[in-house]
Amino acid sequence: MTTTIKLEKKVLSENDKLAAEIRDELTKNKVAALNFVSSPGSGKTSLLEKTLQALRSEMKIGMVAGDVQTENDAKRLISAGGEKIKPIVTGGSCHLDAKMVSKVLPEIDSSDLDLFIIENVGNLVCPSSYDLGEDMKVVLISVTEGDDKPLKYPSMFRRSSVMVINKIDMLELCDFSLETVKKNALQINGDLKIFELSCRTGEGLEEWYDWLKELVKGKREA
Amino acid sequence: MTTTIKLEKKVLSENDKLAAEIRDELTKNKVAALNFVSSPGSGKTSLLEKTLQALRSEMKIGMVAGDVQTENDAKRLISAGGEKIKPIVTGGSCHLDAKMVSKVLPEIDSSDLDLFIIENVGNLVCPSSYDLGEDMKVVLISVTEGDDKPLKYPSMFRRSSVMVINKIDMLELCDFSLETVKKNALQINGDLKIFELSCRTGEGLEEWYDWLKELVKGKREA
Repeated sequence: MTTTIKLEKKVLSENDKLAAEIRDELTKNKVAALNFVSSPGSGKTSLLEKTLQALRSEMKIGMVAGDVQTENDAKRLISAGGEKIKPIVTGGSCHLDAKMVSKVLPEIDSSDLDLFIIENVGNLVCPSSYDLGEDMKVVLISVTEGDDKPLKYPSMFRRSSVMVINKIDMLELCDFSLETVKKNALQINGDLKIFELSCRTGEGLEEWYDWLKELVKGKREA
Repeated sequence: MTTTIKLEKKVLSENDKLAAEIRDELTKNKVAALNFVSSPGSGKTSLLEKTLQALRSEMKIGMVAGDVQTENDAKRLISAGGEKIKPIVTGGSCHLDAKMVSKVLPEIDSSDLDLFIIENVGNLVCPSSYDLGEDMKVVLISVTEGDDKPLKYPSMFRRSSVMVINKIDMLELCDFSLETVKKNALQINGDLKIFELSCRTGEGLEEWYDWLKELVKGKREA
């Protein structure tokens, strides 16, 4: 057990060093950076498709799409008009680490970016431990997953700055209370900024876009 | 990297040893054993609640409910009439391992069981690597998660014997094709036994119950 813990600490401290280098580069270039995390199928790629379509005319957006297998998400983002999109296939690993991001970042060229979004592997546990150099983690939860998830996977909600509740068009078919999920999430992390939206109907997307625009503006002026 | 790989191999081989002991005990007692795996919120607990309600009068069922935090799932299963239900709170770990199951199994007393079901942590990646002494893994996927998931998380579908497609009552609201998900899953694992059901409407549950009854009967007569 001791060996496992020591090794885990070493892996994480090496990761943190690389993450700090990524953060330095992005900060120098005044790029806002988000790390999208969620269960598989919560709608990370769908929200990024919508975001690209809505904002790519007014800001330069780069994205990295991580998956255990397939480059399907990256292909979807390119089809949505993304120009600086790179896939990372982890080949079995349950999370992205800073080394993987560091390797593809030069191909995206952060000196020519306003916003950089990392779409992590769909996993509500392991990616919470890995800093990728982002300004903040954005955790997505869809209403079909149940309003108890923040209590059952607290680390992810504790380490995120934003929670996006997706698929609110399906609320009436689900035993899911918006009030309960927000209460549960804020109990874990009282500072969470919360959005409620539906990528399918478009409800709530304007607030999300406005927030992103403010974020990018703040970074430019920093 | 070499150290990590060696250590991982060692952890897995220790796990396999304990899993073999669990399997020996369950086989000796003629208990059918399933390991339920899926993304968070696919409906593992809901399907187990229904299963308990439908079958507890005709067979003795024991269950272990694993979660990163909270004993909520175990409480739900007890409310559904389960008598031999034990929670495992992993406290951060992204999967159950054989040691955790081995520790609670004596409290369930497998000599007085027909069916033993382990509800794993909601995670479509890591639990695939851990044998818990089960006869087979049952992977759940809900139609809200997208029909591409077997291709993106192939290991879980490769190591499962059964795939349950849940929440089929939501099909018309989702961009999800039953045909595509089955094609994708069978491409990864041609031997998968597939069920399509909805815990909410009850559609498809009878076939699932019948299969469980046959499984238990087969085990008794083995």
